[in-house]
Amino acid sequence: MTADLAELDARDPLREFRDLFQLREGLIYLDGNSLGAAPRAAAARVAEVVKEQWGEGLITSWLGADWSTAPQRIGDKIASILGAGPGEIIAADSTSVNIFKALTAALSLRPARSVIVSEATNFPTDVYMMQGIEAFSGGRVRAVTVAPDAVLDRLDDDVAVLLLTQVHYKSGLVRDMAEVTRQAHAKGVLVVWDLSHSAGAIPVDLNGAKADFAVGCGYKFLNGGPGAPAFIFVAERHQAAMPVLSGWFGHASPFAFEEDYRPAAGITRFQCGTPQVLGLAALECGIDLIAQADLAQLRAKSLALGDLFIAQMEARCGEFGFELVSPREPGLRGSQVSYAHPHGYEIVQALKQCDVIGDFRTPDILRFGLTPLYLRYADMVEAAERLREVCLTRAWDKPEYRTRAAVT
Amino acid sequence: MTADLAELDARDPLREFRDLFQLREGLIYLDGNSLGAAPRAAAARVAEVVKEQWGEGLITSWLGADWSTAPQRIGDKIASILGAGPGEIIAADSTSVNIFKALTAALSLRPARSVIVSEATNFPTDVYMMQGIEAFSGGRVRAVTVAPDAVLDRLDDDVAVLLLTQVHYKSGLVRDMAEVTRQAHAKGVLVVWDLSHSAGAIPVDLNGAKADFAVGCGYKFLNGGPGAPAFIFVAERHQAAMPVLSGWFGHASPFAFEEDYRPAAGITRFQCGTPQVLGLAALECGIDLIAQADLAQLRAKSLALGDLFIAQMEARCGEFGFELVSPREPGLRGSQVSYAHPHGYEIVQALKQCDVIGDFRTPDILRFGLTPLYLRYADMVEAAERLREVCLTRAWDKPEYRTRAAVT
Repeated sequence: MTADLAELDARDPLREFRDLFQLREGLIYLDGNSLGAAPRAAAARVAEVVKEQWGEGLITSWLGADWSTAPQRIGDKIASILGAGPGEIIAADSTSVNIFKALTAALSLRPARSVIVSEATNFPTDVYMMQGIEAFSGGRVRAVTVAPDAVLDRLDDDVAVLLLTQVHYKSGLVRDMAEVTRQAHAKGVLVVWDLSHSAGAIPVDLNGAKADFAVGCGYKFLNGGPGAPAFIFVAERHQAAMPVLSGWFGHASPFAFEEDYRPAAGITRFQCGTPQVLGLAALECGIDLIAQADLAQLRAKSLALGDLFIAQMEARCGEFGFELVSPREPGLRGSQVSYAHPHGYEIVQALKQCDVIGDFRTPDILRFGLTPLYLRYADMVEAAERLREVCLTRAWDKPEYRTRAAVT
Repeated sequence: MTADLAELDARDPLREFRDLFQLREGLIYLDGNSLGAAPRAAAARVAEVVKEQWGEGLITSWLGADWSTAPQRIGDKIASILGAGPGEIIAADSTSVNIFKALTAALSLRPARSVIVSEATNFPTDVYMMQGIEAFSGGRVRAVTVAPDAVLDRLDDDVAVLLLTQVHYKSGLVRDMAEVTRQAHAKGVLVVWDLSHSAGAIPVDLNGAKADFAVGCGYKFLNGGPGAPAFIFVAERHQAAMPVLSGWFGHASPFAFEEDYRPAAGITRFQCGTPQVLGLAALECGIDLIAQADLAQLRAKSLALGDLFIAQMEARCGEFGFELVSPREPGLRGSQVSYAHPHGYEIVQALKQCDVIGDFRTPDILRFGLTPLYLRYADMVEAAERLREVCLTRAWDKPEYRTRAAVT
């Protein structure tokens, strides 16, 4: 086994990427789906922004260091890995704020319809943002959530927009973007895709799927840093929609200081306030790494890592009551493997003491993110073995692992 | 004069702050009202966040390095310089997004009223955000702008909220926050104050003025770095208002992943998405410096710098047709001095070549920001003298200064 593993890692076409990340030897980091590891380039890039561009260049760096075009430039790089065209994605704001922009733009394109549909178990911020729109609309908009498998049946003539996450944050189940979009369009419904657990994790073909809008997060599989700027995709055919968050950086001529809002052409109107320069600099380091990788190799390795981890969990932890909640079938699984276990919380805490970082999601989910850019096949075996040791010692009976604090 | 100047600077009680900023000798930086200079501490602090907290601590830094509480902690520090209480300010998002939050929260507190009033010459993003709300409201909300001196007369029973910037971005004219708020409240109108050119620049007493809501920018006089997170103030008595941007970081229990939005108590509900950790780290360096300064000394020096600059401009540039558009009376003037000149654009460009950075605002305004933390009295004299040299050589006749690019 050890020899086979060594050969798997030695033959891995992505093996050289690991050295481009800051990862302590011994640590097995299976939480890249919460916060991706730091690209080694990020420290120097951010230091340059702080010391040279801000410190020396001061205000002149908006043009001189291309701060003003970073959101579009980085957006185009993200587009290149998501099957979108240049000028269809911009890096800006948070995922939550971008959900608001996408939903309200979609509503404006379907003025005779009033309902936003999502699945009840969607990532909470998606649903919360829908509910905020409903509350503000004074009865014009309704936010409706249904069971995951009832989503398509719920689409009727009153539904303006469907909001779905492509890869479910707990289970890792992948939805068929092209097929769901096709069925929604057949009923006149626009779709907003949340790609937070897709971007950099699985192949995405936004234009191939005829997607309308999408949003996603910069700090997970894109390795953009804590609280990195998020992104928003608006298909070129929808870019005439008016953004509700009509801030000055979305204006056609921000420095003309005109009295009335006049939206910029293209994706820029979906920018709102001043770009987050420091966060963008770190994000670009992460994007640049993903953009160098072969996306098919990335997907193949991600699934192979998952298959190996599942097999190792069966072999080493089969007797401890873990229930696989991610799809076993690779084609339906994102870049994560999740298990349910009644002592899930305590096990995740105990694992941290063994230098394996995963995360816990209520009520009982252990979630292991598999980032193919920096994980090794050997890590899958070692993680399952350390998990076995945690279970053998019945770590959940130890008081130090039982106090529940907020976990991210 | 030189001896007097040297003595003024030698006696300046704030003189030691200059060394805490990265400022090249020879440069006279009069654009701290667009982008404040970099605190020397910022490079090391941000490097620590990238290399230690993100790179080594990874996901555990959300709790271990207090990322999760930074928005509130920094908000409390901002509160301490703005006359607000702990728990009344949070650092989050951009000024534009925070304007949206404040306006929609105010509207929700005045459900029987439908108008947002501002002055037509307000900073554009303020007005643009109002217009976005109007467009989305489907006729329920109207965005109305009037002449600056007609604002209070416009307040009637249908006005829900008045949006004003305390220090005007072009002229530097200061509005009387307490008096305007009093008159608005007498008509049942709530007020949202934009403090972008106030925070760190002039004394602000939000609770003394019975202010309702306020927003402001982190990258000007707070020296928080390019695109720094902004802030929002919500008076404690209004914190039950529902935020329209109801994202997961404003939820009472974000990591419970509940299906319905349940707002956090207090100011936290006015946070929306994941905090911008890198931007917050730099912002905190800026805030920490301002928080150490005596605010009365800051104001006294700011006005003395302005008086000196105005006097020097009269003495050295009196014959070149500059028209003072900032109030001559110190009590009405923010921390900037602005002039109108038909060749304003070209003069600002030519001045840059003489290592004096100010900025230009349409149609003809030269704007000089006076940051008392790092400017010296000698800088005022030298800036006026270099401006004289620019005028003596009729720089505006030189083609290299006449091409208008986007200026920030």
